[in-house]
Amino acid sequence: MESVIQDQIHTFRESRKNRGRLLINCPDQPGIVATVSKFLFDNGANIIESSQYSTNPEGGNFFMRIEFECPDILSKKEVLRTQFQTVAEKFSMDWKLTFVYDLKRTAIFVSKELHCLRELLWEWQNGDLLTEIALVVSNHEDSKAIVEALGIPFYYIPASKENRAQVEAKQLELLKEFDIDLIILARYMQILTPSFVEAHPFKIINIHHSFLPAFIGARPYDRAYQRGVKIIGATSHYVTNDLDEGPIIEQDVLRVDHREQIEDLKKSGRSIERSVLARAVKWHLEDRVIVHENKTIVF
Amino acid sequence: MESVIQDQIHTFRESRKNRGRLLINCPDQPGIVATVSKFLFDNGANIIESSQYSTNPEGGNFFMRIEFECPDILSKKEVLRTQFQTVAEKFSMDWKLTFVYDLKRTAIFVSKELHCLRELLWEWQNGDLLTEIALVVSNHEDSKAIVEALGIPFYYIPASKENRAQVEAKQLELLKEFDIDLIILARYMQILTPSFVEAHPFKIINIHHSFLPAFIGARPYDRAYQRGVKIIGATSHYVTNDLDEGPIIEQDVLRVDHREQIEDLKKSGRSIERSVLARAVKWHLEDRVIVHENKTIVF
Amino acid sequence: MESVIQDQIHTFRESRKNRGRLLINCPDQPGIVATVSKFLFDNGANIIESSQYSTNPEGGNFFMRIEFECPDILSKKEVLRTQFQTVAEKFSMDWKLTFVYDLKRTAIFVSKELHCLRELLWEWQNGDLLTEIALVVSNHEDSKAIVEALGIPFYYIPASKENRAQVEAKQLELLKEFDIDLIILARYMQILTPSFVEAHPFKIINIHHSFLPAFIGARPYDRAYQRGVKIIGATSHYVTNDLDEGPIIEQDVLRVDHREQIEDLKKSGRSIERSVLARAVKWHLEDRVIVHENKTIVF
Amino acid sequence: MESVIQDQIHTFRESRKNRGRLLINCPDQPGIVATVSKFLFDNGANIIESSQYSTNPEGGNFFMRIEFECPDILSKKEVLRTQFQTVAEKFSMDWKLTFVYDLKRTAIFVSKELHCLRELLWEWQNGDLLTEIALVVSNHEDSKAIVEALGIPFYYIPASKENRAQVEAKQLELLKEFDIDLIILARYMQILTPSFVEAHPFKIINIHHSFLPAFIGARPYDRAYQRGVKIIGATSHYVTNDLDEGPIIEQDVLRVDHREQIEDLKKSGRSIERSVLARAVKWHLEDRVIVHENKTIVF
Repeated sequence: MESVIQDQIHTFRESRKNRGRLLINCPDQPGIVATVSKFLFDNGANIIESSQYSTNPEGGNFFMRIEFECPDILSKKEVLRTQFQTVAEKFSMDWKLTFVYDLKRTAIFVSKELHCLRELLWEWQNGDLLTEIALVVSNHEDSKAIVEALGIPFYYIPASKENRAQVEAKQLELLKEFDIDLIILARYMQILTPSFVEAHPFKIINIHHSFLPAFIGARPYDRAYQRGVKIIGATSHYVTNDLDEGPIIEQDVLRVDHREQIEDLKKSGRSIERSVLARAVKWHLEDRVIVHENKTIVF
Repeated sequence: MESVIQDQIHTFRESRKNRGRLLINCPDQPGIVATVSKFLFDNGANIIESSQYSTNPEGGNFFMRIEFECPDILSKKEVLRTQFQTVAEKFSMDWKLTFVYDLKRTAIFVSKELHCLRELLWEWQNGDLLTEIALVVSNHEDSKAIVEALGIPFYYIPASKENRAQVEAKQLELLKEFDIDLIILARYMQILTPSFVEAHPFKIINIHHSFLPAFIGARPYDRAYQRGVKIIGATSHYVTNDLDEGPIIEQDVLRVDHREQIEDLKKSGRSIERSVLARAVKWHLEDRVIVHENKTIVF
Repeated sequence: MESVIQDQIHTFRESRKNRGRLLINCPDQPGIVATVSKFLFDNGANIIESSQYSTNPEGGNFFMRIEFECPDILSKKEVLRTQFQTVAEKFSMDWKLTFVYDLKRTAIFVSKELHCLRELLWEWQNGDLLTEIALVVSNHEDSKAIVEALGIPFYYIPASKENRAQVEAKQLELLKEFDIDLIILARYMQILTPSFVEAHPFKIINIHHSFLPAFIGARPYDRAYQRGVKIIGATSHYVTNDLDEGPIIEQDVLRVDHREQIEDLKKSGRSIERSVLARAVKWHLEDRVIVHENKTIVF
Repeated sequence: MESVIQDQIHTFRESRKNRGRLLINCPDQPGIVATVSKFLFDNGANIIESSQYSTNPEGGNFFMRIEFECPDILSKKEVLRTQFQTVAEKFSMDWKLTFVYDLKRTAIFVSKELHCLRELLWEWQNGDLLTEIALVVSNHEDSKAIVEALGIPFYYIPASKENRAQVEAKQLELLKEFDIDLIILARYMQILTPSFVEAHPFKIINIHHSFLPAFIGARPYDRAYQRGVKIIGATSHYVTNDLDEGPIIEQDVLRVDHREQIEDLKKSGRSIERSVLARAVKWHLEDRVIVHENKTIVF
């Protein structure tokens, strides 16, 4: 289980080795910001970036993301977590404390359409996706060469309706072996079983090639063409067991006109699919996304 | 039945009084452009703007719009139509010959939300909507003052589910009396009966406050909020008897984020609703829209 | 000096009468957020919305905007200001404490092009611009009727190169008489003298009809046409004594093509000019804009 | 001088081997369309796509692009050209007749920033850039591996201010040897000499990393940051001997905010640079661009 970390990522994580992120989701009430910021100050932390949002100041939900610098943070992980637990209990917080140095480990699932995979690999090579891409899984061999050229393990697992159970068993084994934090469906085109999805709550990001909730399901460009829309779109969302109904992380659109046939829509759409997925993955890796009531807050 | 034509429109139509437009829809075959352009040349016409589109050069449909100048065109209307009929028959054309001087007569239907009406009136006052606004019909009195201030007849016809038949009878009478070519539903919020719609094929333009086909039907902003979309939209389309399923003329979108509540979406959405409807109406008035298989070609 | 406040604005300010806003600009250092949030908590305030930004966590500048609810805030204005002064001094803050109930008083300067004025008045009637429009000043009479119809005082002051001193003297007198907080140049088309501008630092918002810094100065659409740009723009900025070089608050753009002549660009551009100016004014009125080194932070 | 043509391109050109394109630029007068379309009809050609534009119907310029199918066109090239010359002379036309089967031969010049090169290669591999990429020239070796992996000749020519004459002599030799039709400066970052540029009129396409005419010249992102713009852009244009002043083919923009430092602007900007350049190159290859008075008509 070799480690594939690009030079630029390595340099970046070293330069951020004292950087932590705190994500909070709790009932709103006075004093949260004062208490949390005092906690950080008392621990010698300096706030770099802070965002917050309340659904409704009276009786609503409160969400917060703080990125901070704290000397020797890597040696104080457990201390900080233990101490913050007290604060968290007082305000009934769902919370998460992460460390920029600890790269999330990613698995990319792909099929025959490679534009989204290519975009992810490219951004990653440029140091713009701070993750360890641990492996790529595909039901086709088209991407094998470009993946292995980067030193990333590639697993070819042919998939069909008949062998879905075996395929997923093999995939789950790999995800466990490689200790994966995030699964990216980069135009994987296979529907995952409910048990697979339930095992990875808000850990699977998909790109759907339409402006959801328009054209849920198969062949969205064909249907966009039939409907005669003047704008096409792409949507990146967390996968839940309601097909294409999971929390939306990012969307984008592109103007088209009557001259574009289905094949043209597919070509044009590739450019927004790849950028929308890349942005969604990036925000997830930077702990910018909080899910609440099947919607996302993106800080 | 007085006539309300703004100064700027009057000046414009005078400056275009030799201007005609030819719209063609026929099976594709070689020779169409050569024949049509020869017809125009032989009649002393100079082509100002020409657009064409073929769904498929072999056995598909051919669409064309030509705007041209022809000396004394207003005295030759019937001659041109008669002559062109021969050309049209040879190529099995659906066709239309219109004259810029003959302003289309418009009825605007509105309810309590006035932003779309205001935009249309404003564009019209600026000389950017070349039409005669013959009357405004509303089931509320909110717009009476601003309509009558412009010298446009205003008809208040209270509407409910119970009196729909009477309301439409009164409306149809007015449309006939005022010799209306185009009905604009500027957030009218009432569903028209099948017989009313069938009496005006591709003569009714609606603005729907979503990015169709997402959020067909009632309360689209509420549903957009519930779904957590990152982009909202507006769609202008011809009304058919399939609710919100008529041919789309124009759409536009706007980025939103998690902080925007339903009321914020409604406010933001108003700016795209009004511009999308205004563009769709303008294109219709300029004879730029051809309907084909529930889609539009916009030249 | 009568007061013109629309019903909707009145209702809104009543519903927000305990709402305050704190804007801070100071050298960055640990403890700012902790101290400010403790100050608010100790005064019984609940944070509704908070944004912050550091140019550089080590030795850079720190900017913050907090909107909060505080019981009986209107009776505690001076107490809060006095108390916060102590906090501010500790961190060498530039700061401002404002109260939503205290509407800013606005003067709109306009010339013959009325689309921006119309947009502002419309947004204001809808309750979307929370300000008291105290007067409109123009060097032409075109807008007199629509302004006075809303009960807003209109002052016609003919302007020419020769009488600039007298014109500005009269304008300054009016601004003083009406106790104006913000001057909006809604396509005013006259250049203000250095002394006039200096008397109103970051209190004058202009709309320039280009994508600055492209096409600084006169006739930007003509020059955009000559240059053959594929996208036109509009820019709203604070006025300084460097022509069109003041801090940019908002910009937007619109795609155009080779068919559009100068007049078409002007028409198309109106839609972005009006929305860009309206957004910039709205953000200023909501105390969302902080100027730093000739740039704006917009929270 | 081996030939590198991808499979997909080969398939496409075979399927279009009877396809021609006619580009016309002449003084406007009645009868042009009729004459040209009759010429095509008489030669058995079927018009697939046709676009035209007049700067001004009375005494202006007329531009036209027609794409057509004509049986056995490859054996009739010279006949068609000779025959059309007669038509062209009658109307004083500048004209060009091209054949889709005859791929244009391209040279890409690149420096150390590879994102634009990568995009071009990718589009080309997908069959979306119908050209023969004959060689890549660079003053750095960074791109050698990815270029040669595709079987494309790579020439490393170190460049400095001192050796410009020798560098260009070598480049010109290669352009001649490889019989190049189009030079793409994919972030080449070197200024070409006047004689080099003059030798290739409207045959050199550059990508400039700003929204021209804003930030002409060096370091546009630094200057965009200093100016505090809210939107950044990229511009693709033909190279002339006025730096960054050549005819603009395509532009696009991206919204940014105060949090983005110069490095962030550079990263964000890469996505629009690459797509803008790819679109401009594609349109040039499809003979969609006509230059007129330092502007482009893009059909």
